[in-house]
Amino acid sequence: MTGSGTQMKTNESKEPLSLAPPRGMRDLLPKETALRDWATRVILETYEQFGFSRIETPALEHLQNLKGGEGGENLKLIYEVLKRGEKLEKVLESPNIERDQLADLGLRFDLTVPLVRYFCSNQNDLLFPTKAIQIGSVWRAEAPQKGRFRQFTQCDIDILGVKSEIAETELLAASSAALLNLGFSDFQIRINDRRLLTAMVAHCGFTGRFDPIFIAIDKLDKIGVEGVEKELLEKWPGESVTALCQLLRSSQEQNADLTSFATALQKSGENLSQELSDALKSLAAIIDGVQSTAEGKYDIVFDPTLVRGMGYYTGPIFEIGMKGYSYSMGGGGRYDKMVEKFSGRDVPACGFSIGFERIIGVMMDQGAKPKDAKEKLALIFDPNRDKTADIMKAADKLRKQGFSVSAHPRKKDMTKQLDAFLQHDFAKFVAFKGDVDNLEIKTLGSK
Amino acid sequence: MTGSGTQMKTNESKEPLSLAPPRGMRDLLPKETALRDWATRVILETYEQFGFSRIETPALEHLQNLKGGEGGENLKLIYEVLKRGEKLEKVLESPNIERDQLADLGLRFDLTVPLVRYFCSNQNDLLFPTKAIQIGSVWRAEAPQKGRFRQFTQCDIDILGVKSEIAETELLAASSAALLNLGFSDFQIRINDRRLLTAMVAHCGFTGRFDPIFIAIDKLDKIGVEGVEKELLEKWPGESVTALCQLLRSSQEQNADLTSFATALQKSGENLSQELSDALKSLAAIIDGVQSTAEGKYDIVFDPTLVRGMGYYTGPIFEIGMKGYSYSMGGGGRYDKMVEKFSGRDVPACGFSIGFERIIGVMMDQGAKPKDAKEKLALIFDPNRDKTADIMKAADKLRKQGFSVSAHPRKKDMTKQLDAFLQHDFAKFVAFKGDVDNLEIKTLGSK
Repeated sequence: MTGSGTQMKTNESKEPLSLAPPRGMRDLLPKETALRDWATRVILETYEQFGFSRIETPALEHLQNLKGGEGGENLKLIYEVLKRGEKLEKVLESPNIERDQLADLGLRFDLTVPLVRYFCSNQNDLLFPTKAIQIGSVWRAEAPQKGRFRQFTQCDIDILGVKSEIAETELLAASSAALLNLGFSDFQIRINDRRLLTAMVAHCGFTGRFDPIFIAIDKLDKIGVEGVEKELLEKWPGESVTALCQLLRSSQEQNADLTSFATALQKSGENLSQELSDALKSLAAIIDGVQSTAEGKYDIVFDPTLVRGMGYYTGPIFEIGMKGYSYSMGGGGRYDKMVEKFSGRDVPACGFSIGFERIIGVMMDQGAKPKDAKEKLALIFDPNRDKTADIMKAADKLRKQGFSVSAHPRKKDMTKQLDAFLQHDFAKFVAFKGDVDNLEIKTLGSK
Repeated sequence: MTGSGTQMKTNESKEPLSLAPPRGMRDLLPKETALRDWATRVILETYEQFGFSRIETPALEHLQNLKGGEGGENLKLIYEVLKRGEKLEKVLESPNIERDQLADLGLRFDLTVPLVRYFCSNQNDLLFPTKAIQIGSVWRAEAPQKGRFRQFTQCDIDILGVKSEIAETELLAASSAALLNLGFSDFQIRINDRRLLTAMVAHCGFTGRFDPIFIAIDKLDKIGVEGVEKELLEKWPGESVTALCQLLRSSQEQNADLTSFATALQKSGENLSQELSDALKSLAAIIDGVQSTAEGKYDIVFDPTLVRGMGYYTGPIFEIGMKGYSYSMGGGGRYDKMVEKFSGRDVPACGFSIGFERIIGVMMDQGAKPKDAKEKLALIFDPNRDKTADIMKAADKLRKQGFSVSAHPRKKDMTKQLDAFLQHDFAKFVAFKGDVDNLEIKTLGSK
């Protein structure tokens, strides 16, 4: 028998078959699958308590939809699907084959593009505002690296049609409740607003496109204010950089609160713009709203340096961090203009995405197990002696006692067989003696 | 706003975006998704009680694996994925581009090919025998037709490594238990054996390849014994056809039982072969075993005319039918040679596949609903008056009473708003008056 990573024999003498999954993708073993299923169930049930409903879209989307959206870097990573039948034949017959003619569908690279298409397509059948849960696979042909996969699960909630900050507050309360229900604690929500970020940079005297400045601020965690200062000074006038870095420093020192941040922005004597004062009010209401149900189990703090992916956010943005982990466990924000860009209709929107793979990674590291799993019991029988009907009756009896029961033919080396059961999380076993009324349940690994 | 099926505006002047999902694929609305999630959970939990564990494989497989297996007609229906990066560039630069050079991966068309690859690849980490559950999407580029989709869910259990008929019995008991737990009753398992089928045809004097004869027998339901007779007479000698049709008729008249069928095969005086007598013993044990735990809630009957897809079955085959439905709700059988063909190692195997899409279709027709869903409650607030923190506290209170709660800003036409909630399965509502301690829960549609 060949081992993992080697190749399979095939009955026809074609290309050899490959035992390993495609590059960058995973086979999931029973232990991890059980944990993922449990986590999915907990998240889903929590979100349902908050009035969200799960929806599903196909894994494949029209290629022009995927490429016409706001996917940024992800557009380069799309798995494209070859046209089929006559359509493909026609392309292959033409003298100059161009890449773009070969494919018409692509595997989705996120759940947001499909959500917007879904919403536009099914709006007559949906409650408005629409509160959607999506849990599903996405595919990106990224350079493989540790902990990153080319097929992975995303887990999103989105609210389409609510302008009020109740939307952000519900997203954050629901996501926090899901994390608590999964057994996490000691986490912190950081929140900022795209409009504040823009105002802060403009206030300091920067002009032109702000994206490169945001990218520099985003590195604050890693390179400190000094690092940011150095990076910005290469391209921007010194006084703007000094003003910005002073603001960054003071908000770090004072453990940033909204009021002092607003005061700092006002120092120059000018009044806050309407937009800015709306943003500050929104943030205060979200922080207040989340705290009102957090019962001290988690924190929410204002972080004027939070940036996030810059593509489509228009208002509040947020991330959830956990003590001891440098990466965030999820994030999201308001993206009010996206539905309009796709369909011409003005529909406010915001969403939150739990970092499903990260959360599972942490739980696997901690040896977490599904909390509602039944105890596994092996019913070991003698295939030469025991009648199938008797084995089934015995198994049925044990199932009715609440066990997850599996009937296994007895092997010659029973010690080895019991060890294997123990290794695969079995708790109990019964060595069947042919007598359905007399089943002796033994604990594995206890002798 | 454009409607479903029309096209989306795009900010860039590229190809117009498409609102509908790709051809033959579906967007799932909340009601159907909730039912599917519930059914999945019930099936999964039932199978876990029978000692099966869920595993997962990637949606994409190496194309040569998909094409090198035993997919039959499905091989023509594979969605192939374009090569990426340099690999693709190299192909496109060559003067004669061949179709086979363009793609290296494909979307799986069933869960059996991935299972066999998975088993061979991960055997060191799996308990042996291995009892696997797979629930997941498969993709086939079929000609679209009513009720058939190009992406659909399959739901399989398989046992790898058990020769004894306890494997078939557990598959059937587990699948039947799942159907009962979903609320189905009045179903019937029909069982036959590939070896019996072969022996029956040989016994009647047929020679050569039996597949076309099996295909004719498979139509018995639709065209009757006369139809089968007519079809066979076109190609085979009359006496063989007469003998076979006599057997078919007598097994229909006698409500086929194993003993009389065996007697009929023995009439010519010869003894049954060892293989045939093994097959009969196996079938008897499976029928007996299933009946021992069925408690009269469902039937299992011998059906010498059951054929099923002929590709890879080597022993017992079975289907579950339901009164009032002409198609089966699931089926499976033993395929002892498949792992060996892939890997050279002799591993007995059998599996059962629930017709997930059919079952959901029937449940949707019957208006079935998830049995464990919380009552949905709309908390209607006034965005101009109510504080976010108060709304959140009120919602929290109602959630703690067991409701699924969603906060919605009050619309001008509240009657219309309440109608919309009712239409989307909300049971209750609270018109929030700003007072968290005084929440009046009203039933929707009751006034």
